[in-house]
Amino acid sequence: MNAEILAVGTELLMGQIANTNAQYISQRLNSIGMNVYYHSVVGDNPKRLKAVLELALSRSDIVIITGGLGPTQDDLTKETVAEILGDKLILHEESLQKIEDYFKRLNRPMVKNNVKQAYLPESCIIVKNNNGTAPGCIMEKDEKIVVMLPGPPSEMKPMLDDFVIPHIAKNSPEKIVSKYLRVFGIGESLLEEKLINLINNQSNVTIATYAKEGEVTVRITTKNDNEVKALKALSAVEDEILEILGDSVYSDEDKELCQVVADMLIKKQITIAFAESCTGGLISSVITDVPGISAVFDRAVVTYSNKSKVESLGVKQETLDKFGAVSRETAIEMAEGVKKLAGTDLGLSITGIAGPDGGTEEKPVGLIYIALASKKGTECKELKLRGNRTKVRNYATLNSFDMIRRLVNEL
Amino acid sequence: MNAEILAVGTELLMGQIANTNAQYISQRLNSIGMNVYYHSVVGDNPKRLKAVLELALSRSDIVIITGGLGPTQDDLTKETVAEILGDKLILHEESLQKIEDYFKRLNRPMVKNNVKQAYLPESCIIVKNNNGTAPGCIMEKDEKIVVMLPGPPSEMKPMLDDFVIPHIAKNSPEKIVSKYLRVFGIGESLLEEKLINLINNQSNVTIATYAKEGEVTVRITTKNDNEVKALKALSAVEDEILEILGDSVYSDEDKELCQVVADMLIKKQITIAFAESCTGGLISSVITDVPGISAVFDRAVVTYSNKSKVESLGVKQETLDKFGAVSRETAIEMAEGVKKLAGTDLGLSITGIAGPDGGTEEKPVGLIYIALASKKGTECKELKLRGNRTKVRNYATLNSFDMIRRLVNEL
Repeated sequence: MNAEILAVGTELLMGQIANTNAQYISQRLNSIGMNVYYHSVVGDNPKRLKAVLELALSRSDIVIITGGLGPTQDDLTKETVAEILGDKLILHEESLQKIEDYFKRLNRPMVKNNVKQAYLPESCIIVKNNNGTAPGCIMEKDEKIVVMLPGPPSEMKPMLDDFVIPHIAKNSPEKIVSKYLRVFGIGESLLEEKLINLINNQSNVTIATYAKEGEVTVRITTKNDNEVKALKALSAVEDEILEILGDSVYSDEDKELCQVVADMLIKKQITIAFAESCTGGLISSVITDVPGISAVFDRAVVTYSNKSKVESLGVKQETLDKFGAVSRETAIEMAEGVKKLAGTDLGLSITGIAGPDGGTEEKPVGLIYIALASKKGTECKELKLRGNRTKVRNYATLNSFDMIRRLVNEL
Repeated sequence: MNAEILAVGTELLMGQIANTNAQYISQRLNSIGMNVYYHSVVGDNPKRLKAVLELALSRSDIVIITGGLGPTQDDLTKETVAEILGDKLILHEESLQKIEDYFKRLNRPMVKNNVKQAYLPESCIIVKNNNGTAPGCIMEKDEKIVVMLPGPPSEMKPMLDDFVIPHIAKNSPEKIVSKYLRVFGIGESLLEEKLINLINNQSNVTIATYAKEGEVTVRITTKNDNEVKALKALSAVEDEILEILGDSVYSDEDKELCQVVADMLIKKQITIAFAESCTGGLISSVITDVPGISAVFDRAVVTYSNKSKVESLGVKQETLDKFGAVSRETAIEMAEGVKKLAGTDLGLSITGIAGPDGGTEEKPVGLIYIALASKKGTECKELKLRGNRTKVRNYATLNSFDMIRRLVNEL
């Protein structure tokens, strides 16, 4: 069975919010083996809403609608669906009671408009809303299922998870099982070339790649009415991919690189400190977003000025004079300096030119040195990155984490 | 003229990412007076992609497509658009050269697949991509405009802003002029209450508020074919709002708070250093995303361990023992310590409990102290924030910037 997600609301078309509901619902539907073929967004406009709904019903078995269940005049989802499916709205006393109770609890006056929310299609199955005033509902007709849920994610999500997904799952014979391999250091096209034989020969297991900010994710998906069989089929393909990509795969659980690195450091109790120049604290800030990192992360020094590199990290003035702040030599002294200062197992440093200014012909914007000091000595990597300041900084940060990951793997 | 935004990519339908591109593009189109009536998402499936594209062209004047310009076999946007509009793809030498240069700079092998990205519709206008390999393009036929842009936001956004929006704006008779007032320190409902008379009496100028992570934006919008008249109408309403909200408005140019603070520091040549504990480098990383900040930002010390607070900042061991790391006393010593260490005009420190663990009854998760040392002495602010780790860290960072803003205003 295939599904479509339709969001109703002008605020989406104005760009005030992103349609995160569609993302959430897609994940849930895919997990129970429903193919999601379309997302659509339409405004609070009766004519366009009706046309989009009719189209959705013509091409999808299940249509999940979010939004347009509010108390105001331009909230028209139920009215439009009922019209198309030949039903009428009637007052649902239990829902009205719930709405009245809701306002009582919040100690807020209930306005007349809210009564509108208790009118529901006569033939519908009601989906209770414990976090807001708009009940949802499900209509089933001619092998089609239409689900209507409120727009606010805090109301929609529990209604979907607790009632709608179990209800729909009854109709689904098959399970979709997916696995996500996260890859760093291989571009999307090279990656596809490496996997081309597998991709071309895919039958019951599909392989897809997609890129995001310097990383690539390989998605392996299969469908089966037996979950054990599905997992077994995935596992075989996964092994083949891992064989080809080797240690460029940093996660087989769809985890972020920083999370993988943090987990490794915490598990192996390897302490670390950072000396950051061009990234300005980004590496430190990203890794400290992981709870529990304080067990291994001691400190970071963001040395933006040359003076601070000398004072805080013990970089030699003559190194700066001779090679410049953005150089292999300075990076190495920074990494070793912060390791010594903090007394940690690892010291990672980064220095470079993030742009947009400050580049020269010899040292262009995007030139980055990352050094990593450990008991094995100090290694230093030179990168030439492209893009704007934010991209250079982000990509430099990812490269730093990947360098730590590769080293810690061997410790 | 009305527009539709079409995203191509199975990863959206799988729920792996949210369609933030549609949000971004909607904002930009609305700002030049284009009505956005639909968003659609379709997977990398030739038949469904073609059907959705044909529908979009039948109901919208402008169709902006994101995604499907990648190097892989399932990237089919250009092929499908060209087929529908009766054009063919030809090799664009200049784009090929750019792609080759891109790989050369990254020091990565270019694979055969990437050549596909240099094939573009014969009659198209090319939109250069300075942050990736896929060029975009614009096709115009029978009063319809089709724009094709790559999916990664870091590539799409500059291409949209620098080329596509100015190109489309030429076709717009009426200008929508908007002004965004950014507010910190007043919640959305209180803010709406303060502005309720203005909002209820709005006629040709509309006022809308929307909240994002601890900030509120007030959008004032008007439509006019005469830009001077539009700006004058906006300006009158803006003055009334500023009168009511006072110095809680930190920008009337839709600038981020960190940018406003950075601009102030740079303009007044006031130097600064940070001592961060619970934010782990976030404050420093956010402000160093602003180009040119090196003129006033000297360094930051991320002191996660108590030892590092003593060693790097000169916090007294007895202060830590007596009051704890998360205390007013420690925050003040950290701020004064980093100011002295760096020899800057200002020293800002932050210490707190970001969670999810580490809270006690006396010092719960969300308790934050921010201290700011200057020639006027040292002030310290206690905050009790709510939400998860990321939210606490972000909101603490915003509060830090607001504290700097208010002090620097008086220097």
